[in-house]
Amino acid sequence: DILGAIRATLAEGPLSGRHVLVTSGPTHEPIDPVRYIANRSSGAQGAAIAAALRDLGARVSFVTGPARVPPPAGVEVIAVETAREMKAAVEAALPADAAVFAAAVADWRVTAEKAGKIKKEQGKLPVLDFSENPDILAQVSRMAEGRPRLVIGFAAETDDVIAHATAKRARKGCDWIVANDVSPATGIMGGTENAVTLITERGADAWPRMTKEQVARQLALRIADHLSQH
Amino acid sequence: DILGAIRATLAEGPLSGRHVLVTSGPTHEPIDPVRYIANRSSGAQGAAIAAALRDLGARVSFVTGPARVPPPAGVEVIAVETAREMKAAVEAALPADAAVFAAAVADWRVTAEKAGKIKKEQGKLPVLDFSENPDILAQVSRMAEGRPRLVIGFAAETDDVIAHATAKRARKGCDWIVANDVSPATGIMGGTENAVTLITERGADAWPRMTKEQVARQLALRIADHLSQH
Repeated sequence: DILGAIRATLAEGPLSGRHVLVTSGPTHEPIDPVRYIANRSSGAQGAAIAAALRDLGARVSFVTGPARVPPPAGVEVIAVETAREMKAAVEAALPADAAVFAAAVADWRVTAEKAGKIKKEQGKLPVLDFSENPDILAQVSRMAEGRPRLVIGFAAETDDVIAHATAKRARKGCDWIVANDVSPATGIMGGTENAVTLITERGADAWPRMTKEQVARQLALRIADHLSQH
Repeated sequence: DILGAIRATLAEGPLSGRHVLVTSGPTHEPIDPVRYIANRSSGAQGAAIAAALRDLGARVSFVTGPARVPPPAGVEVIAVETAREMKAAVEAALPADAAVFAAAVADWRVTAEKAGKIKKEQGKLPVLDFSENPDILAQVSRMAEGRPRLVIGFAAETDDVIAHATAKRARKGCDWIVANDVSPATGIMGGTENAVTLITERGADAWPRMTKEQVARQLALRIADHLSQH
């Protein structure tokens, strides 16, 4: 992506001189050396947001799980696999003026990853014990010192999207939530379009359905506007 | 892959007029609409075997889970996601002269896939009940009528490879087992090379470490040789 690299170098824009952290993609949580738990996030929305922020002049740290969509050029890429690795990479990338947590981080991991492949024995089924993964969004939102001025979370919901996302904003302590409906009927998870509702302190703003690039551009402009005023 | 398509059309070889079934890739077993259990199979070895069989003149039915490596040209591709879908696709593709089960089929699935995304609630961890998936290799190996003359299974082991693979051959009732060591130290799972041991009725034959294409070529030649004699 030569054009992206050129843009990154030349970009003079409303985010010039700003550092923005973006997380993206799924995390993979190992069960044993060959099996893992994954989710259907393609990383497309996170990659588009990182590219849009770059195009407005920001320096972007892009912490990404194993996504299907490649990272954009002209951003600093930090590749991780698990939620715990993502948390460590986020901490290392701070401080930042704004942080966009677009990754679909696994809520749970398998407590004791098996060192050898779990064997199939007749009539015996595996028992997996789960532990809660670190809540990266909540932890960054509640940082006593060095908190980014604007912390943005994502909510992938399958029902009652606005109510769940509004509750999530309060629970996590973040500033904005980008909520979307990932129920299979919408075709959004893994698709090219997105229909998001932006939840802020002023309420819920439903955006029309548009491409993930357009969502990214709108969000990047809102971020630039916010940082210029706060 | 224009060259592959031309080869498939022109191929006159020791497998001309033969139909060979190949399964490949991982299966994905859904937990809920966004989460699933996967494994690290890239589908590279299965795709290479299908291409090698095609190059020897075989008509190839290629039943593949969500692999990272694209299917070869000039074979009939049947894309599936779960073990149950793979079983149905295999049954529909039979009869065949030989069947190569290179897919890394999940041994277990989550018994009751949730219709909505499992919500994270404070202090509450998910409990997953597992069921055994259909054993496609054993079922085809034990077909009373219409069994392929040569049924080949794969064994991905992390320890005691030959003993485990020899036991697997007996347990499944297949003719050959292609065994490999997928312990993380070997770098084989997801890598470009393979070190296999072929288990037949005559014992264990350890092949030198070579590329997955070379393994595929050797195996295809052995299959052609076997079918010409039986």
